[in-house]
Amino acid sequence: MSQLLTGVPASPGIAIAKAYRLEAEESIPQQRKVDDPAAEQQRLRSAVDAAKADIDRIRETTLERLGPQKAEIFEAHLFLLDDPDLIDTTLDQIESDGVNAEYALYEVASSIIEALQSMDNEMLRERAADVKDITGRVISKLEGREHSALSELSAETILIAKDLTPSDTAQLNLEFVRGFVTEIGSRTSHSAIMARSLELAAVVGTGADASAIRTGDMIILDATAGQVIVNPSEEQLLEYSARKAEYEEYKTRMRSYVDRPSVTADGVQVELASNIGGIDDLEKVLANGADGIGLFRTEFLYMGRSSFPSEEEQYSVYKHVLEKMNGKRVVIRTLDIGGDKELPYLQLPKEMNPFLGQRAIRLCLDKEDLFRTQLRALLRASMHGKLAIMFPMIAVLGELREAKRILAEERAKLEQEGTKVSDTLEVGIMIEIPAAAIAADVLAKEVDFFSIGTNDLIQYTMAADRMNESVAYLYQPHHPSILRLVQLVIQAANRHGKWAGMCGEMAGDSAAIPLLLGLGLYEFSMSASSVLPARELISRLSREEWAGLAEQAIGMSTQQEVLDFVNQQLRSEA
Amino acid sequence: MSQLLTGVPASPGIAIAKAYRLEAEESIPQQRKVDDPAAEQQRLRSAVDAAKADIDRIRETTLERLGPQKAEIFEAHLFLLDDPDLIDTTLDQIESDGVNAEYALYEVASSIIEALQSMDNEMLRERAADVKDITGRVISKLEGREHSALSELSAETILIAKDLTPSDTAQLNLEFVRGFVTEIGSRTSHSAIMARSLELAAVVGTGADASAIRTGDMIILDATAGQVIVNPSEEQLLEYSARKAEYEEYKTRMRSYVDRPSVTADGVQVELASNIGGIDDLEKVLANGADGIGLFRTEFLYMGRSSFPSEEEQYSVYKHVLEKMNGKRVVIRTLDIGGDKELPYLQLPKEMNPFLGQRAIRLCLDKEDLFRTQLRALLRASMHGKLAIMFPMIAVLGELREAKRILAEERAKLEQEGTKVSDTLEVGIMIEIPAAAIAADVLAKEVDFFSIGTNDLIQYTMAADRMNESVAYLYQPHHPSILRLVQLVIQAANRHGKWAGMCGEMAGDSAAIPLLLGLGLYEFSMSASSVLPARELISRLSREEWAGLAEQAIGMSTQQEVLDFVNQQLRSEA
Repeated sequence: MSQLLTGVPASPGIAIAKAYRLEAEESIPQQRKVDDPAAEQQRLRSAVDAAKADIDRIRETTLERLGPQKAEIFEAHLFLLDDPDLIDTTLDQIESDGVNAEYALYEVASSIIEALQSMDNEMLRERAADVKDITGRVISKLEGREHSALSELSAETILIAKDLTPSDTAQLNLEFVRGFVTEIGSRTSHSAIMARSLELAAVVGTGADASAIRTGDMIILDATAGQVIVNPSEEQLLEYSARKAEYEEYKTRMRSYVDRPSVTADGVQVELASNIGGIDDLEKVLANGADGIGLFRTEFLYMGRSSFPSEEEQYSVYKHVLEKMNGKRVVIRTLDIGGDKELPYLQLPKEMNPFLGQRAIRLCLDKEDLFRTQLRALLRASMHGKLAIMFPMIAVLGELREAKRILAEERAKLEQEGTKVSDTLEVGIMIEIPAAAIAADVLAKEVDFFSIGTNDLIQYTMAADRMNESVAYLYQPHHPSILRLVQLVIQAANRHGKWAGMCGEMAGDSAAIPLLLGLGLYEFSMSASSVLPARELISRLSREEWAGLAEQAIGMSTQQEVLDFVNQQLRSEA
Repeated sequence: MSQLLTGVPASPGIAIAKAYRLEAEESIPQQRKVDDPAAEQQRLRSAVDAAKADIDRIRETTLERLGPQKAEIFEAHLFLLDDPDLIDTTLDQIESDGVNAEYALYEVASSIIEALQSMDNEMLRERAADVKDITGRVISKLEGREHSALSELSAETILIAKDLTPSDTAQLNLEFVRGFVTEIGSRTSHSAIMARSLELAAVVGTGADASAIRTGDMIILDATAGQVIVNPSEEQLLEYSARKAEYEEYKTRMRSYVDRPSVTADGVQVELASNIGGIDDLEKVLANGADGIGLFRTEFLYMGRSSFPSEEEQYSVYKHVLEKMNGKRVVIRTLDIGGDKELPYLQLPKEMNPFLGQRAIRLCLDKEDLFRTQLRALLRASMHGKLAIMFPMIAVLGELREAKRILAEERAKLEQEGTKVSDTLEVGIMIEIPAAAIAADVLAKEVDFFSIGTNDLIQYTMAADRMNESVAYLYQPHHPSILRLVQLVIQAANRHGKWAGMCGEMAGDSAAIPLLLGLGLYEFSMSASSVLPARELISRLSREEWAGLAEQAIGMSTQQEVLDFVNQQLRSEA
């Protein structure tokens, strides 16, 4: 009898293969008395060295396959294996208690893990998983076991595990692994993020149900639907083989759009750009043939560290991105921190409503030094590509003028110092506050472009926190009010000869793209994986026809009416 | 040499009179051994009875002068004097320790006060002041002192005190007291609220500076400016006598508008209504000749108690207000609770951004029972006057339809039960969310009226918490974006033959009224004290002229431009 499990669709795709169960290696080492503690200490040192060599190898592979940001975690692991709290304390314990290395290490690590897990700081709590990962690795070495057979798989396989550690995921042999299923985890857990980076089908968070799967069980993994079928019937195998072929055909068809221009059926050229959070995302952007970067969130440069990034550090990142994009436009958003996004080294007062608080440009205009450092780095980088600087959370003209004044000052200083700044540098703003959308005509005169940030714009227009479940029904991207604001913004930009883009989730939504096109949007910035489907969709749409349809949608009463209307139109066109 | 002190302008007016210093009676009673504890206990009982008689007298006066809500505190005082924790414990202590009543009471009260002050609950902390107040009163009785000479003042006086207790304020002899100055307090402290109710000039929170003022010092109290001049010069006395006369002339002129219609210079009739928070505010509304009540916040009915108010209880309050208003329109807003406004007996989950959370109608639609109770009370009360029911925080049409569906159900049930409901009952909504303003044309078809709630509308449109100091600069009622939304709302209402009102602070602002009039606003609802100045202002304005001027203002770039423009126009007309 086949069995159906459901979980979180963490990374899309369909895979059909036998299961390989990765057992959690959580055996607790037995205590043994040793006669020669010095020899036992030596045994520990050798195991640590062997583990380090393994990790270093994994780090190298990750660096090649997934980029420097994803490889960072293994540098942290190497660093931990030099931590005197862990290793020196274990060495001492071997000597003082005369016990075996496995046991001593396990004891010392456990107390560190426990201390970390009780911390109030999430980053430190996550560090506990790293200590566990490396401890397991060293103990495997001591016990003469291979830590993991992951790299030695030799047939098509779907991995089944309670959870996958960073080093498990990094070692997956992509020649044979077709996907994985884990009992714990969410869309944002480490293994899910890695799966999407590797374009590997994955379902996570199935709960204990998956623990019944044995190595050798036949598995259909429909990661697009979040489903796992264990020991499927013949019919199911046939059905899913067909679906798999269909999905692969679809992917192949999408891939054929990589090098095509982003142009509508009636010949209107648009820009399909991508949002990135760091340089690791670049590869996927390029692989998906995006026309540029419509939103580079610079927050990652400031997070997970203990002090502000220097001008030099920022400059080298911005330069790298601009060079990689090779003349395609890169819109870099200045720091959007404050509110709910905190930096450990920047003490901000607690706010009652952080989403309505001192965030983004409001904070930057208050803490000018940190703003100026970023602007200098951006201005210097502008010589290495097609840069557009974007200020977030502009509500009123005064803020834009103030930001531009500071930018002009830094530009003048740099030029006085003999540093060149690009003459074609664009300066624009996010439109994510209702006031800015409503007065877009006023703002349009003093910018080069607008980029509509729909996530925040919808939240403020509906007065509904988009993270709050009880008001989630008000997150309505297709509501006529939202479409009207979007229309105001696009019209204002076009009337003043500026371009209008969008970098919220709505820009990649296939039920929104036709309307946005009809309203005259020029640039659509979305996650890299949405670019090709969007290009394919746009190639089938007539801008002129959708201009009329969008006008109709804007006069409707509810989001549901709009959605029904768009879907019906799309079906009748297909 | 004269001396100038500044404080918080708590209640406007100018007074010139001699100071009377009210000394804080915080003497700590000495411990004395008593031979006859039973006699000492009797002494305490008599003092408590005498204090109760005093408080009961104060309660009566307050009830007459200020209404039942303001008198409530003295009921609480009477109740405290029956509290066994205070009185019985003191009686026991007199017996067991053989000490004098003053000392025993002081000791027992101090430990209660200390416990209350350390509480996490603000209401309980405030209760500490009440225990102090009544304890002081009983000790005065025991010591044979008059607790306060406040009621016995016999010449024009400005009171000077560290702070005024509720019973101090309630006992002020208005024949002679011309105003007061306190060292502590803010605009929202009890004494400030009482001063405004009594229309008594008051400056609070001067800090320790006021402690140097002695009984008999000459005082100029310019409470409109928050200034206190001690021992003024001849010139100052002359200057302020003139100002006082001017201010009184102004007040008299304003009073002449009490019975006039609210009509513009070019003969357009508007409605100048008043906002109220409870039945105690009615008297002021009537005294200021408001054309109706534009916003009755019903929250007070739900606060400061331990369970929901019954349908009966609500009905009698709504009926009372409707009857008192005698045929003038009364707009009653359904419960606006949730977010930052909590009820002790309604457990709500903690929200990260309460202003963007499950407030008002969102909560009522989720907790239908409590909504239905209020609607039934309102429907039943509708027979006693001209009632308009208003739903707060409507964002989308679906919410309005749902609220109206529930209202219709309750109406049908009542009518089935044989209870009459008015046929002229109006149903409208607050427009305080940008989405509702932008799609006002859609909503206008299904309501009888709109009332624009500017406080929230501005907050959401600017994405700036109006309670957060760091983004206070974004609270811009005159910003073109806000004016444009207001225009959209008014036009939508008028096009569908509905009326549009406003019940935010903006409606009473003299620099906003001309623009709102020009945009076609019909109803302006404000604090009672603003009604007469607004009526006088409107009588001087031409609606037709301001229609053109408002159109100009709406095309401007910043709030400052708009303000300069309006003020210049008003000056040139004066």
